This record gives sequence, structure tokens and C-alpha cells, in this order.
Amino acid sequence: MAQPIKCQAAVLREFGKPLSLETITVDAPKSHEVRVKVLYTALCHTDEYTASGSDPEGFTPSVLGHESAGIVESIGPDVDSVKVGDRVILLYTPECKKCKYCLSGKTNLCQAIRATQGKGVMPDGTSRFHDAEGKPLYHFMGVSGFSQYTVVADISLVAVDPKADLDVVCLLGCGVTTGVGAAQITANVQKGDSVAVWGAGTVGLSVVQGAQLRDAGRIIVLDLDDSKEEWAREFGATDFINPSKIDSNKSISEYLVELTDGGLDFTFDCTGNTKVMRQALESAHKGWGQSIIIGVAASGQEISTRPFQLVTGRVWKGSAFGGVKGRSQLPDYVEQYLNGKLKVKEYITHHNTLADIEKGREVMHSGKCMRCVLDMWPEEKK
Amino acid sequence: MAQPIKCQAAVLREFGKPLSLETITVDAPKSHEVRVKVLYTALCHTDEYTASGSDPEGFTPSVLGHESAGIVESIGPDVDSVKVGDRVILLYTPECKKCKYCLSGKTNLCQAIRATQGKGVMPDGTSRFHDAEGKPLYHFMGVSGFSQYTVVADISLVAVDPKADLDVVCLLGCGVTTGVGAAQITANVQKGDSVAVWGAGTVGLSVVQGAQLRDAGRIIVLDLDDSKEEWAREFGATDFINPSKIDSNKSISEYLVELTDGGLDFTFDCTGNTKVMRQALESAHKGWGQSIIIGVAASGQEISTRPFQLVTGRVWKGSAFGGVKGRSQLPDYVEQYLNGKLKVKEYITHHNTLADIEKGREVMHSGKCMRCVLDMWPEEKK
Repeated sequence: MAQPIKCQAAVLREFGKPLSLETITVDAPKSHEVRVKVLYTALCHTDEYTASGSDPEGFTPSVLGHESAGIVESIGPDVDSVKVGDRVILLYTPECKKCKYCLSGKTNLCQAIRATQGKGVMPDGTSRFHDAEGKPLYHFMGVSGFSQYTVVADISLVAVDPKADLDVVCLLGCGVTTGVGAAQITANVQKGDSVAVWGAGTVGLSVVQGAQLRDAGRIIVLDLDDSKEEWAREFGATDFINPSKIDSNKSISEYLVELTDGGLDFTFDCTGNTKVMRQALESAHKGWGQSIIIGVAASGQEISTRPFQLVTGRVWKGSAFGGVKGRSQLPDYVEQYLNGKLKVKEYITHHNTLADIEKGREVMHSGKCMRCVLDMWPEEKK
Repeated sequence: MAQPIKCQAAVLREFGKPLSLETITVDAPKSHEVRVKVLYTALCHTDEYTASGSDPEGFTPSVLGHESAGIVESIGPDVDSVKVGDRVILLYTPECKKCKYCLSGKTNLCQAIRATQGKGVMPDGTSRFHDAEGKPLYHFMGVSGFSQYTVVADISLVAVDPKADLDVVCLLGCGVTTGVGAAQITANVQKGDSVAVWGAGTVGLSVVQGAQLRDAGRIIVLDLDDSKEEWAREFGATDFINPSKIDSNKSISEYLVELTDGGLDFTFDCTGNTKVMRQALESAHKGWGQSIIIGVAASGQEISTRPFQLVTGRVWKGSAFGGVKGRSQLPDYVEQYLNGKLKVKEYITHHNTLADIEKGREVMHSGKCMRCVLDMWPEEKK
């Protein structure tokens, strides 16, 4: 019978302040729960969004982090999805394979534990994390990868090929999968299709990669930072546009529609900016262009357009975790990486440790960082 | 060689004023043009929208009317799509079968003559209509069915089964096809799907009919006019809701989501009200619900929502002429009508004549009218 474990974690005590490195207690997993020794967690802007206080589903004190991989340390009763020792990627979008959503065949948005996950607790309504004073800490996105150990629902993780290097494939827990999936599953880009992507971060570049793997034709990347051009081209972009430098009195949408003889087959917002979302929609081709929102907008922000844009055939949709069903489909992404088909390592620009998480967060905001991977156990040989 | 013809037409001289009954001259058809003796034209709200002055593509003086059927009187050079004597339905959405749009296989929005149609002229930039003083009158939607004769592009009409009664199937030139097509082509409703339709006019009821023909499950109709309940149920609605009478402090969307255990598979706006369009989107099921805008909004009006609605799997799209390709697909709708599968006659509540068009327009605005069909040649035996 598993016992509580003490370990290090970065705790969000106060929005907008540095995370607090603390020794916390991680309880044993209960029924249908799994305790994971987290080996690597990559930093993602969603953690920053929540840490800033903008996320309506953000709570303090809590343990953030959601792009994580590790090893199953122990399992609670009734768990048959993984076994002790499995190498796993954690899933902030779970897959129960039983709920109305999972059974629909139309979405990856499993709702089995949605309510409790959104409240920062385990499915039974309680937390497995406690601070030195014994007070509970909130979970985050069903993952909480900024702790050396975490407890997750048995539908919130997937065992992957043990050959995969976890310090790389942890990126498949969010950013890379979100972008590649948005291109290949949500949009279902086909050979020769034209694509435009706003925002050349990990998600945006992964949309580019996903489109290129489908042999898309033109792939246009838009970013305000010229240094992203090299990145964009490395992942398959054919064009790079800095919207602030267009020599035209036309709007970006008008400019792109003209440039592409009618508009793009697919456009993707990877910025979270609602004005960009509108530009992306209005740059889609009349008659069939689809625009996919991936970025998370600030709370209360709304998108808008003239309905004529839709009546004339454009489609506005969104994508979460790339439409990927984590337990059914993520192992294939890992294989694609192992076979050299899918670039994953290439996004990693920085490494850091849990102890130095604040340095990692700093470099993320500097604009020089694509992905920074935290080694949760730097002192151990893995 | 065809000569100009003098005939009666209702001319829009001034926005917001009664139409003017005049003897006009209809020129012979030029290359790739067809002159049609219009037998029947039904009144549609789009004519009223333009007559009111709200339509940015409305001009004066012009000949409105677009839901029409007739007989080919003469053809210009290079016409091979129809021959003299063919019984035809006129198409405000043409189909050239050659442009990028027609060849895409993804849309019915043929753009071959879009620019000139939007300017109220024939593809060569001129008009075939002249008033008693010889001054040109603008065409409308490529049809101008409020004239006893009209000239249209040879891609703007389709010959139909001569057995079809044109005083009925003229309705397939707009309203009925728009609704049935939106359900069956744009949305592609499947057996058991749940559907909600805002607005129980001809288009809304045709969405209902299209969904019922696909064996949809629940079909909810929403309309502020209780007298529409009987209509809705006749065409296949399982539920009728008057949104002004809901005994709930919830929004309509919240009410419907609760009523349908998560939301509708498909929702349709047939009102043109941008607030309704938002309600319809937000009533769609998380994960896969699609909302289709059919109604034409007032100029300058915009739709809006939180992007989260799309990121969590809802899809926002639109439909024009039901996604139906007129020349390829309309003859099949006529067959469905002749075989008794498709209700068309049932929408007709009023008959009138061109001379009495103002009475027809009055009854349309009374709310008692579903469709009013104008006999363009009441003195003739047809």
C-alpha cells in the first residue's frame, strides 16, 4: 500500500509573484488514480496565463505545470490503464473512452472529470497535495507537473514506448501535439492546401509542421518578431510576414486574400488575440476557407465579424489539444518522433531545473525561448 | 433574331415606396444570355430587404424579384445550357461549372458573374431593361422576376422536368431549397441528430423539413409568433418554443442546453438577427455542435461570442442557397417534389398577380403569409 511521499514542488502562492519552492506531501493514489514520478516538465504559456491571475480556473495555492512526462510510481485500486514502472505522458485532456463525448467519435473533449479538474481537485473533490503545514494545495489541469510527484486520474495519462526520451516527448503533452493535431485532425489539411498561421511559438510552428507533413502548398507564418522567420522556415513555412512591416494601406486580411488569389484554405490563430482571430477568419477563402482558433483569449474578450463572412462559406472553429485523443492517439505521435518523422527535440531551446524554475520563466518571457524543459530530478541519473 | 419585347414590370423607383407598374422594354439576349417569359414569381423577404433600402447591393431604378420560374423565349448566341421552350427555374446563385469555385467541389458559390450581378447589370456591364423613356433599369440578383420577361445569364437558370407545375416549383428558386439544402448539404444532418431552428418562415420550415427527411431526432422550432407552432409541427418539428414565454431566468441558450442534455447537434438561424445567431451558436453541443447562419443580417451588424465557444468544439458556419448547385442539383429537388417526397406547395398561402403586387407585399408583412406566388400572366391559360 502506497504511502504519502515528501518531495519538492513549485507552488503558486500568489498570482503574479514568483513560484515558491516548497517541500510538499503527495498522498497515495486513491481508486482510479495514479501517482507519477515526474521526470520532466516543459514550461508553457498556459502556466504563465494562470500564474498571472488571468485564468478564471486558476486558484491559489496550487501546483501548476501540465506538459510533463514521468514514470508510474504507484497505482490506486481499480487502475488498469497503466502499471508501475510505465513511462508516461500526462494528459490535461483526459480520455475515459466511456463518456458521451468519448463515445461520440466527434471530439477529444472527454468530460468524465471536467468539473473537478476545473476546480483544481481530484475526481473525489479533494487534493493529494499538502504543504508543510498540512494545508491542501490545488491541482492544475489534472496534471500539476511542477511537483516531483503528482497524482492524476487513471484516464489522464498514457504509457508510451519506453524507448522514447522523456525529456523530449514531454512536449507532446501539450504544445507540439496541439499544433500538429490542429492541422491534421481539426483542419485535416490536404496536399496542396494553402495555410496561414499567426504566432510562431511552439504551437504555431507545430501547425506549420503538421501542414508540411500533409504536403500543404503555401504555408505563411505571421509574427511580429522577425527572428521567428528562421524558425518558421525550419519547420516548413514558405512565407514569413511581419504584419507590422507590410507596405500597404490594406488590412492584413485584404493583403493576404490578394496575395493568395482569394484567401487561404486554412488559417490558424496561435496568439490568443481576438483581433488576430478575426483577421484569420477574414483571410480564409470565400466558399470553403476554415479558420481555427487555438490560442486562449484573455478572460471576457470576444470575437466578432460580419455574418456575411460565414454565409459566404467561411467556417469558424476551434481546437483544443489538437483534437487528439490522448490515450488512443498520442502513442502514435511518439512513434512518429522515434521514426524521425516528427520534429520534437527541435523546439527545445533551454533546459533548466525545478530549483531554477524562475530562471526558466524569465527566459520564456524574453522571446528567445521556444521551449524550456525542466529536469525535475537533476541530481539523479535517468 | 430576337427583337426587343415590351411587357409589364414592377419597378423599384424609390426605396421604401410602392413598386411602380410600368411597361418596359426587354432587349434581346446577347451572347451567353437567355430571355425568359416569367410565369410565376414568389415574394421573398430578400426583395423586401432590398426594397427598403437596407441592402448595400440594392439600386434604383431596378426590377426586383428572384424566386421565379418560366419558359425560355429566346436564346442568344453561344447558349447550350437550355433551348427555346424549356421550362426553367431561375437561379440567383448561378453555376458555370468552370470557375475556381465550381471546380473546387467545396461550394455552390459560383463567382463567374458575381461582380456584375452585384452591380445590377448583365455580365457585359449593361442592362437589358429600359423604361418608357429608354432609360436603363438595373437587374436584381441576376433574375429580376418582377418583369413578365427577363434576360439572365445562361448559367443563371436550369431546365426542369416539364411535368412540374411552375406555380409551385418557383419556390425552389429560393426559400425551400435554401432551407432543405442548409439541413442536408451544409449541415448534413444525420439520423437521430438533434436540431433547433430559429424563425419559422419558409426557410426555417424548410430546414425542419430537410432535417425530418434525414430522420433527425428532436427538431425544435423557436419563433415569437405562437401561430407558427402548427406550421412547425406540420413540417416535422417535435417541439415549439416561444422564447418570449420561457418560464426561466436562464438565457435561451442555457435553457436549450439543459433541455437537450448538453446542446443541439445542429442549430440554424433563419432570422437575420445577430443576437439570435449568437444564441444559436451557444445552444450547440460542446465538442461537435454546428451552428449555421442562413438569415441575412442588417448592414453593419456583427456577430460575436467568446472564442472559448469554438475552442470547446462548436463550429460556426453559414449557408447560401442551401449549398445547392442550381444546375446540377435543383432538378433532383424538382423530382423529389414530383414524387411526393418534398413538400413545396404546402408553403403557398396566397396567390396574387403582378398588377396586384402591392397587395401581395402587404400580406407578406402581415405575418399571415408564408409564401405568396404572383401569376405574371393572369389573363393567359397556362
